[in-house]
Amino acid sequence: MHLRQCDALLKQYFPILDWGRQYNSGALTNDLIAAIIVTLMLIPQSLAYAMLAGLPPQVGLYASILPLVAYTVFGTSRTLAVGPVAVISLMTAVAVGDIAAQGSFDYYLAAICLAFISGLILVIMGIFRLGFLANFLSHPVIAGFIIASGILIAAGQLKHILGVGGTGQNLIEIILGLVPQLGKINQPTLLTGVLVIGFLVLVRTGLKRVLLRLGIAVRIADIIVKSSPILAIVLTAWASWKYALDAVGVRIVGSIASGLPPFTMPSFDPGLWKSLLGPALLISVIGFVESVSVAQTLAAKRRQRIIPDQELIGLGAANIASALSGGFPVTGGFARSVVNHDAGAETPAAGAFTAIGIAAATIFLTPYLFFLPQATLAATIIVAVLSLIDPGVIKRTWIYSKSDFAAMFAAILLTLLAGVEIGILSGVALSILIHLYRTSRPHFAIVGQVPGTEHFRNILRHKVVTSPHVLTLRVDESLYFPNARFLEDTVQNLVAENPAVRHVVLMCPAVNSIDASALESLEAINARLRDSNVKLHFSEIKGPVMDQLQRSHFLEELSGSVFLSQYDAFSTLDPESARKALAR
Amino acid sequence: MHLRQCDALLKQYFPILDWGRQYNSGALTNDLIAAIIVTLMLIPQSLAYAMLAGLPPQVGLYASILPLVAYTVFGTSRTLAVGPVAVISLMTAVAVGDIAAQGSFDYYLAAICLAFISGLILVIMGIFRLGFLANFLSHPVIAGFIIASGILIAAGQLKHILGVGGTGQNLIEIILGLVPQLGKINQPTLLTGVLVIGFLVLVRTGLKRVLLRLGIAVRIADIIVKSSPILAIVLTAWASWKYALDAVGVRIVGSIASGLPPFTMPSFDPGLWKSLLGPALLISVIGFVESVSVAQTLAAKRRQRIIPDQELIGLGAANIASALSGGFPVTGGFARSVVNHDAGAETPAAGAFTAIGIAAATIFLTPYLFFLPQATLAATIIVAVLSLIDPGVIKRTWIYSKSDFAAMFAAILLTLLAGVEIGILSGVALSILIHLYRTSRPHFAIVGQVPGTEHFRNILRHKVVTSPHVLTLRVDESLYFPNARFLEDTVQNLVAENPAVRHVVLMCPAVNSIDASALESLEAINARLRDSNVKLHFSEIKGPVMDQLQRSHFLEELSGSVFLSQYDAFSTLDPESARKALAR
Repeated sequence: MHLRQCDALLKQYFPILDWGRQYNSGALTNDLIAAIIVTLMLIPQSLAYAMLAGLPPQVGLYASILPLVAYTVFGTSRTLAVGPVAVISLMTAVAVGDIAAQGSFDYYLAAICLAFISGLILVIMGIFRLGFLANFLSHPVIAGFIIASGILIAAGQLKHILGVGGTGQNLIEIILGLVPQLGKINQPTLLTGVLVIGFLVLVRTGLKRVLLRLGIAVRIADIIVKSSPILAIVLTAWASWKYALDAVGVRIVGSIASGLPPFTMPSFDPGLWKSLLGPALLISVIGFVESVSVAQTLAAKRRQRIIPDQELIGLGAANIASALSGGFPVTGGFARSVVNHDAGAETPAAGAFTAIGIAAATIFLTPYLFFLPQATLAATIIVAVLSLIDPGVIKRTWIYSKSDFAAMFAAILLTLLAGVEIGILSGVALSILIHLYRTSRPHFAIVGQVPGTEHFRNILRHKVVTSPHVLTLRVDESLYFPNARFLEDTVQNLVAENPAVRHVVLMCPAVNSIDASALESLEAINARLRDSNVKLHFSEIKGPVMDQLQRSHFLEELSGSVFLSQYDAFSTLDPESARKALAR
Repeated sequence: MHLRQCDALLKQYFPILDWGRQYNSGALTNDLIAAIIVTLMLIPQSLAYAMLAGLPPQVGLYASILPLVAYTVFGTSRTLAVGPVAVISLMTAVAVGDIAAQGSFDYYLAAICLAFISGLILVIMGIFRLGFLANFLSHPVIAGFIIASGILIAAGQLKHILGVGGTGQNLIEIILGLVPQLGKINQPTLLTGVLVIGFLVLVRTGLKRVLLRLGIAVRIADIIVKSSPILAIVLTAWASWKYALDAVGVRIVGSIASGLPPFTMPSFDPGLWKSLLGPALLISVIGFVESVSVAQTLAAKRRQRIIPDQELIGLGAANIASALSGGFPVTGGFARSVVNHDAGAETPAAGAFTAIGIAAATIFLTPYLFFLPQATLAATIIVAVLSLIDPGVIKRTWIYSKSDFAAMFAAILLTLLAGVEIGILSGVALSILIHLYRTSRPHFAIVGQVPGTEHFRNILRHKVVTSPHVLTLRVDESLYFPNARFLEDTVQNLVAENPAVRHVVLMCPAVNSIDASALESLEAINARLRDSNVKLHFSEIKGPVMDQLQRSHFLEELSGSVFLSQYDAFSTLDPESARKALAR
């Protein structure tokens, strides 16, 4: 029995023990095929997102080796593919750019440290089961943030397509940085960039249609299309070498350190930690939210389940592994996970095999990347993020809910104009504020007896019987601090407006809890009503709420009574009205 | 008609137009009597709280003149008495102490500016009806904050009782500041302080009992007791002059500028405003919360009502008036408002009369305060704030709700150890976090049909009939972003655990709204269930929620149907089980 509990606990923290024991040759074949396809897709992405984060290209490859192995051990999704992703890479560039100059060794060290802190935060959140914190990022805010980040990323890559300099953390800075450079555009670079973008877009739209018409299955066609960036890389690297494009001003990737990832120890400088803590927290939470929603979507397709709190540990382990092997912050990527899933990956082992593929690339492929134009990577990034920008979601949110739209709009606008960190934080703050505002004004109704029944309904919607002396208020919400004062105001105003009232009944069938603030408000209401000779009663209090109230002195001090049913209350306080209503 | 609307609007923003038109000689007499008593009580408090705020004593008197007149014009409470109060004075000292040295002219200017900014914030909150923001301060957090502030204030005054120096914004700093001074205690100062504390405590307990035994009414006895500080001031000022206490080291108030308040123009230095904005916001909100709860309690006793959003304007006007007349931040005080009410004040005119009394004091009384020992004022403060410290509320909160206790405890501990600003902010943040955490895990129940009826109840609590193919989930909460993911997880896990299930029904009688995040979650649930060949249905959706859903494409994409009643759903999806259950 003890052994079994121990085993269950081990399996919970090391999901690999669960699926690993049932591993067989069928799964092996499927995982291997998926791994080859994901490797081909991940190589260009790793190089590109490292550039987006302002880091040398090989760092992107490093971040796609050990992190995948760590996730294989600790993650609960069977098909999630972790590694560098666009939004997290942008956030890394912003966070680290505040600390050191891009290209410096300190910059690289700070990126490694950022991955380590993010990993630590994720693991701690996982151990303390704080995954619920991610719930406070509302969907519209995330959607808005991602749209704006996509625009920022695309705008930031324009300089590589144009072959000019430029910098900036928000849209205005980026545009103002580009404008004076427009005279210095490098034609061959622009040509390369435009051709690659054109090729990638064409593949996405045209090739897919052709493949489908040829009778190839949708998921196979998708896989072919999503592997196309590797072809762009091979072709442009070859062309760049063949025609010596660097001689005509096309910036190339240049010499890349070859070989397996180094072992790196993150810095423990308290000053550095202090300035990275905030960004690391944001990166962790956003990475987690993105990753979990991908993992959940894919798990559902096979009726599998993921455990969000264990996912925190899996992603945390991946980031710590990244920090220890010269990488930068990683998370689960949407496109590559879908490819992994559609290519038939059955277990997280596919991720480990992908890691082997990328490791092989760091050893054998890097020399061939010397001539790769940076514009190719920029084009890959731009085409990838453009798919993040979905104007439809803005319109749908506007139509569905104006308050959700307000939070989304704030996230978009502030991300574009003030940068990613302020953008996401304002969106979160606004959506919580809107939520609290709504809860602070819950739905209340004055109710009366439906003639001929013992039911009570809203007097504004139904023809019901009321009594001049008895005021019954139905509260359609739990009572807690955001609405405690509202309840006080409402009761006080109603009593002030109805001087004939001698009894107030609070009907509580929808009250699931009463917190200490609401209890104090009820005490205040009770005392104030008593001062003006009105008794306070309750009806239909739920069992758990009653239990809680009995832990206070409120029920003893209550001027009136607690009735089991609202009809009991009404027929006791105004027997004549109740009897007449019932008889009708 | 137009005129009437205009009149109503004017009355709303200038409540004085309402009660002023009905003013008569009876009300005049009552207001005058109340004003005399409140004046006697307010003089020592004004002097003492000015000292607590680190300002010259006459500034306390200035803050008790024009602010009262402004509140008379704009306030909605008939009996609220505004002026300097303990907690706000402490917060003023903390905020202004960060900017200038206590005693300097810049310090005074910053205090004036703080009052102005607070006033502006309150007025803006009033105009935009942002009074609901105060709801996010939960009662336990405020209670904890006030207890801790009381302790901080009392500890901070010890130096005046001991006749030594000392400083500090949190308990540790204050204690560490006092310890090295313990050898330099001034005996005559200590004697004065202890005598005054003893006198005030004795009056509060003993005298009240004696008065009650003499047959004097409770409210009269209370008034006499609460006026006792003025007697302590007169006696010690006289003794200090008579026995030249200043010659033996007793610190005296010294020369006070005599005459009516000066007209002061607050500074508009952007740097000063920036550093005062945060503290001013806290002072505004806390002052408002305190003031409104006092005003509401008193209004209820006479079945009057106050309008919280207009109270914001009233308190804002009072603070702006304070800033324009050499005062510092003010709000409605608890003790003095109760005295005002009990002494029979009928209209806000009592406040205006009190202002006249205080104005007279600034002209005629100030010379006599020259010899007043500072220890007397410190003793007044200590006795006043000790009544704020109510350990009972801590115990009651602990018994009633552990999560409320956690927020309260954080507010107490952090206020004591990290100061008032961090203390209150942490308390607020924690209580919102706890609230969000709770909402993020709403009550869900799997339901089945109660045999022989068309009712559906929780399968864990009742003997009910279920179907292996139909899973019905009742959601006891509105669906919004904090619980959207929880809903996804719950449905996914339940379906993963029950492979035979072909239909999931969400029963929504308690769902009052579905926000965009929850809608997206429902879309995800629908898509994932479809991927695993399970249909999603709804039952008992409320009218307004249905209207909202129809503004999206969700209902068209829904794999299942929307049923009016849960019995409809069950009898359609598994007719046999439903029929059998009904027949039993």
